[in-house]
Amino acid sequence: MHRRQFLSQAGLSSGLLLTSSLNRGSFSATPPRKLGVALVGLGNYSTHQLAPALQETSLCRLAGVVTGTPAKAESWAKKYDIPEKNIYNYENFEQIKYNTDIDIVYVVLPNSMHAEYTIRAALAGKHVICEKPMALNVAECKDMIAACREAGVKLSVGYRLYFEPHHLEVRRLGTEKIYGAVKMMETSLGFSMADPTVWRLNKKLGGGGAIMDLGVYAIQGARRGVGELPVAVTAQGYVRDKTIFKDIYETMLFQMEFPGGAISNSTTTYTSYVDRLYATTGYRWFGLQPAFNATGATGDSSAGKISFPTPPYQQIRQMDAFAQSIIDNTEPLASGEEGLKDLRIIEAIKQAADTGERIKIEY
Amino acid sequence: MHRRQFLSQAGLSSGLLLTSSLNRGSFSATPPRKLGVALVGLGNYSTHQLAPALQETSLCRLAGVVTGTPAKAESWAKKYDIPEKNIYNYENFEQIKYNTDIDIVYVVLPNSMHAEYTIRAALAGKHVICEKPMALNVAECKDMIAACREAGVKLSVGYRLYFEPHHLEVRRLGTEKIYGAVKMMETSLGFSMADPTVWRLNKKLGGGGAIMDLGVYAIQGARRGVGELPVAVTAQGYVRDKTIFKDIYETMLFQMEFPGGAISNSTTTYTSYVDRLYATTGYRWFGLQPAFNATGATGDSSAGKISFPTPPYQQIRQMDAFAQSIIDNTEPLASGEEGLKDLRIIEAIKQAADTGERIKIEY
Repeated sequence: MHRRQFLSQAGLSSGLLLTSSLNRGSFSATPPRKLGVALVGLGNYSTHQLAPALQETSLCRLAGVVTGTPAKAESWAKKYDIPEKNIYNYENFEQIKYNTDIDIVYVVLPNSMHAEYTIRAALAGKHVICEKPMALNVAECKDMIAACREAGVKLSVGYRLYFEPHHLEVRRLGTEKIYGAVKMMETSLGFSMADPTVWRLNKKLGGGGAIMDLGVYAIQGARRGVGELPVAVTAQGYVRDKTIFKDIYETMLFQMEFPGGAISNSTTTYTSYVDRLYATTGYRWFGLQPAFNATGATGDSSAGKISFPTPPYQQIRQMDAFAQSIIDNTEPLASGEEGLKDLRIIEAIKQAADTGERIKIEY
Repeated sequence: MHRRQFLSQAGLSSGLLLTSSLNRGSFSATPPRKLGVALVGLGNYSTHQLAPALQETSLCRLAGVVTGTPAKAESWAKKYDIPEKNIYNYENFEQIKYNTDIDIVYVVLPNSMHAEYTIRAALAGKHVICEKPMALNVAECKDMIAACREAGVKLSVGYRLYFEPHHLEVRRLGTEKIYGAVKMMETSLGFSMADPTVWRLNKKLGGGGAIMDLGVYAIQGARRGVGELPVAVTAQGYVRDKTIFKDIYETMLFQMEFPGGAISNSTTTYTSYVDRLYATTGYRWFGLQPAFNATGATGDSSAGKISFPTPPYQQIRQMDAFAQSIIDNTEPLASGEEGLKDLRIIEAIKQAADTGERIKIEY
């Protein structure tokens, strides 16, 4: 009997071919164990999105946490039945390398700590998912990619929308030119955020305000819709309230030029709510509003509604896909290289806003 | 009996107080005659929008035409029962001053001819509506305003959306701060236009492509939604096909800064279809899609749908309002001064795109 047939008859996903190191003695009839994920940083996103998603994942599970707050450690341990040995703080984090329950470290820390904890996780021999934006700059991204490559672990960026059905449809319509080639895109994301104590408004921790936090969505929406990487950008930065936005832009608008001639126009802002994507191909168009939020999109087009059942947590698919890429030993879809591309674009956008110049981008 | 009471009892609109020169012997019980409109230029807009609208207007009517094409003159005369004496061409246009059937000249010519024909109409003693954009530049607008003032005639710009219910609602929501002060706006208008024989693509006739033709809508949408005039702009111009767009931008994106701190981001393009308006005030928002076209808008907001019965021709209200301002001797709502403001903004946008600089605007 071939391995695939065996696994199939054992009721396992046909796509799920575990390596022996992962299922600890393959060719048994018991279902393979799920890969263990440790969440690093227990803020809103871990609490309200990732932890619930990890209760529904097929190929991975919440196995550990890393937190600097003992009270959080306690409540998470109780809520999710996490053994004490799988709970780490930022001092003893390195010890995670000896923990065979943990296969994946998911870095959900402020942007300034992405590079450090991704590299520390790689050195501990763990696969890594790092939240977006991948890092503060291109140099950090390169270091992270190199560290994971050298450690022989896989690296992914938390691009949940790579697995969201409305965004997959936008990508299909754009890249397969279903309505013709996309000529213009508009992507916008913003919300009201005026609390200077939030790390996102701290230049050192967040890396530069709305463009770091929200820009990734607007960039990804445009570049995946067009199906190309931008080759030049212009950008404008604005601050309304300098007492709150001391050294970062509150609003950043940017325009991207694609090699095939398409143009995108984007808004990112901390002033107010906006969440839209629009693509136009000549006489036809498609779009999403809301577009980027975690709780579901609504789509429309010149051919009618774009409507899919939105799974409650896009992160279920995202994390299972990463687990699958580990199991299959393939390159993750939302790879570190993808994250690096976005940081190249973000760096160019920042430079364009600071200088008023049109900035070319090379990859 | 007071004049107003008399007119009211005679079944006339209470707002309609005609001057004796207009109803030729007021205080008669017969309804006042409608003001006579002569359309100058019988292209698509005159044919499919203005002429049908003038069959429904209460205070004015289609009384004459000015055309360089005898066949058009003949078919219009037949279709709309226009006497031969009310049909002019571009050579004998000046004779219109002797025609008491014509009170208003409506200039529906290519942009480069707006100033010339507005001034010629004023010199002929006729009130003028000029299509948008009002002229090619600020200097022409000033000349037009001066000519009309000196001739003692009223001047209006063909801003039909000043009278469209969805746009009046956007203006109300914005200027009355129903959802709070507007902090960001996005306005976009574009369609596919790649025929170099069309006057709009000729720099001399059109004045500069999408920003002239479509920019007025995007500018007006933002400045009327915010309720302020922009004080500075940045802009970017793009051409995909230089064989078609020889000396004008095919796409122009622009960003406007308002004195209260609001920002707008706009797209105008001849590459492809886009027709959207969005305003956001913090946590709340309102928008239109389609927004600017002549056949009706669809609105949505954080508080639910924005829906009004769209009258078939917005121009009915527009032209009747102008007739009313003549009758009442008041300043037209869509005045020449409003048109001048938009040309100041357009000139700044063009300069910003050409130089890459942020351009301040003074009014």
